[in-house]
Amino acid sequence: MKYWSEAAKRSTPYVPGEQFNDPTIMKLNTNENPYPPSPNVQEAIKQEMNEALHLYPSPTVDSLRESIAKQEGTEKESVFVGNGSDEVLAFAFMGLFSPTRTIRFPAITYSFYPVYANLFQIPYEEIPLMNNFTIDEKDFFHTKGGVILPNPNAPTSIFTSLEKLEAIIQHNPDNVVIIDEAYIDFAPESAVTLTHKYEQLLVVKTFSKSRSLAGLRVGYAIGHPNLIEALTRIKDSFNSYTIDRLAIVGAKAAMEDAAYLKETTWKIIQTRKWTQEQMEKRGFHVLPSATNFLFVQHPDYNGEQLYERLKAKKILIRHFRKSGIENYMRITIGTDKMMQQFLIVLDEIMQKT
Amino acid sequence: MKYWSEAAKRSTPYVPGEQFNDPTIMKLNTNENPYPPSPNVQEAIKQEMNEALHLYPSPTVDSLRESIAKQEGTEKESVFVGNGSDEVLAFAFMGLFSPTRTIRFPAITYSFYPVYANLFQIPYEEIPLMNNFTIDEKDFFHTKGGVILPNPNAPTSIFTSLEKLEAIIQHNPDNVVIIDEAYIDFAPESAVTLTHKYEQLLVVKTFSKSRSLAGLRVGYAIGHPNLIEALTRIKDSFNSYTIDRLAIVGAKAAMEDAAYLKETTWKIIQTRKWTQEQMEKRGFHVLPSATNFLFVQHPDYNGEQLYERLKAKKILIRHFRKSGIENYMRITIGTDKMMQQFLIVLDEIMQKT
Repeated sequence: MKYWSEAAKRSTPYVPGEQFNDPTIMKLNTNENPYPPSPNVQEAIKQEMNEALHLYPSPTVDSLRESIAKQEGTEKESVFVGNGSDEVLAFAFMGLFSPTRTIRFPAITYSFYPVYANLFQIPYEEIPLMNNFTIDEKDFFHTKGGVILPNPNAPTSIFTSLEKLEAIIQHNPDNVVIIDEAYIDFAPESAVTLTHKYEQLLVVKTFSKSRSLAGLRVGYAIGHPNLIEALTRIKDSFNSYTIDRLAIVGAKAAMEDAAYLKETTWKIIQTRKWTQEQMEKRGFHVLPSATNFLFVQHPDYNGEQLYERLKAKKILIRHFRKSGIENYMRITIGTDKMMQQFLIVLDEIMQKT
Repeated sequence: MKYWSEAAKRSTPYVPGEQFNDPTIMKLNTNENPYPPSPNVQEAIKQEMNEALHLYPSPTVDSLRESIAKQEGTEKESVFVGNGSDEVLAFAFMGLFSPTRTIRFPAITYSFYPVYANLFQIPYEEIPLMNNFTIDEKDFFHTKGGVILPNPNAPTSIFTSLEKLEAIIQHNPDNVVIIDEAYIDFAPESAVTLTHKYEQLLVVKTFSKSRSLAGLRVGYAIGHPNLIEALTRIKDSFNSYTIDRLAIVGAKAAMEDAAYLKETTWKIIQTRKWTQEQMEKRGFHVLPSATNFLFVQHPDYNGEQLYERLKAKKILIRHFRKSGIENYMRITIGTDKMMQQFLIVLDEIMQKT
């Protein structure tokens, strides 16, 4: 550690779900979409590849931002694009939260938030969830430094209504409220409509889940141009070109194929419903999911043990060693066939346990 | 600015060379390679595209790091990969330089360095170059917080010998020395060999110049595993997956085609030699270039005016409004045909001025 900076020393790196390069493993652990992206994505990438890989991409990514703005009913100036929503969140922590003002997020939530906070020295309070894992909006009123909330929350999969989110925003007039909507396309409605009304609201989305592009690394934020400008200043002080040429055209093609998004999202929601029923038949308690995963526990089985036994059978799900959820398992919704296979293996394990 | 953090307010964004989406413009302004990448790159990307764009890439990027390690004569543990060398440099400023110790870099150099320093609050001293634009290595001995130097330097194009660099490293035993080798493949020799000897040395390279992949966004660093670990900790506290699947396989294919690198680099060096002679015939003073660009001035012509007139004729070069180099122009080396065309237009302009 001799040559490490204070930042390197104090950092507490995020640990992503395990990624094995083994096609015989069934991955139900990082909430990837089981369907390939829109066929238009491949076409767009093929075409771009013949053009100019030797030339820099656009540093302002105008074409993709215009396309997102059109789909989201807003203007290009209200859209920021980043290298995955994780990068967008990192820039947002840096550009919109302050080392002198305490922010709040739920105690059970996306575990990258405390990692960013430690790196950028943003003080934070972790607010316990209610007993049923929902958020009490009043806990997030009148913060000193702002709020970050995923909606639906992860790993609980629970959706918070726009009414509650709006109350949080209204009670934080002087601070930024970030709504992290990684899973929003599997949920009732997005808070993007509220960005027209509240200049302190930033909504963050990703191409990695509903648009089947985890492999391409593109995320974005929607908010008042004033917030977008802060993100852009940080990005342009960090890396001029964060999205490569192929990712730009691929994400654009995915964004513009609304019919394909609707079709694959609908399929996943149907599979989610069926999987939930199957899990409940087996005695699992399943939280009401508005995402592409289920968060479940069984009164008679140990969650970590089930995770380990599934892993031994080459099925990866996610387990968090965290107080309050240590018996829960997070299971990504795959295709019908994948979930049938998952249940066959789960039944075998449960019979033997 | 109401909702901006202190970091957003103090940031002084880097301004990259102009990027127009107009194919009738001849781009000699951002030091891109005029040749396409190795044909193996397209093949690799095509194959990967059919695989799994819906799945996350490897967060540790092992396959590409192994490939780089092999070509660079080192181990995977000594290689860090980032989203362009700019991202690698940002992580290095954050992870290896400190807000309490003053670093040094040349007063005329890559203009992103002071931008990073301002963002991460690293104090710095800008050391004037010698009259002939070379570096006096003794100016970089015994620093309080470390050194960052491009070799060859940009925008001067001048190479500093490994002997001088080694002296700087030896006289900074307790601080990190970063050698930014964006243009090294057009120069005599890399400092990578010194990384085996000095654990405080980090060498940064890019796929954007000699490997013709500016559009894919991949850069890397070579150094002692202890330095690499600091970069990895920062990266994993910032964004788990910074390089997408297509960029990983594309960069790997480019790295492994050593013959293609040799061939295209040789062509550019030949064109550089010819262009330099042509410029000198016209009365320009040309600094001795070890890069894929020339840094030139003319005693009788105003550099900014020439830049503007070339731009009006759809030829973009780069001009910096900076004391000491305000009469200079930086001209990227294109193909022979591009440089012939450039000279025809330059002659027209000079005759009219």
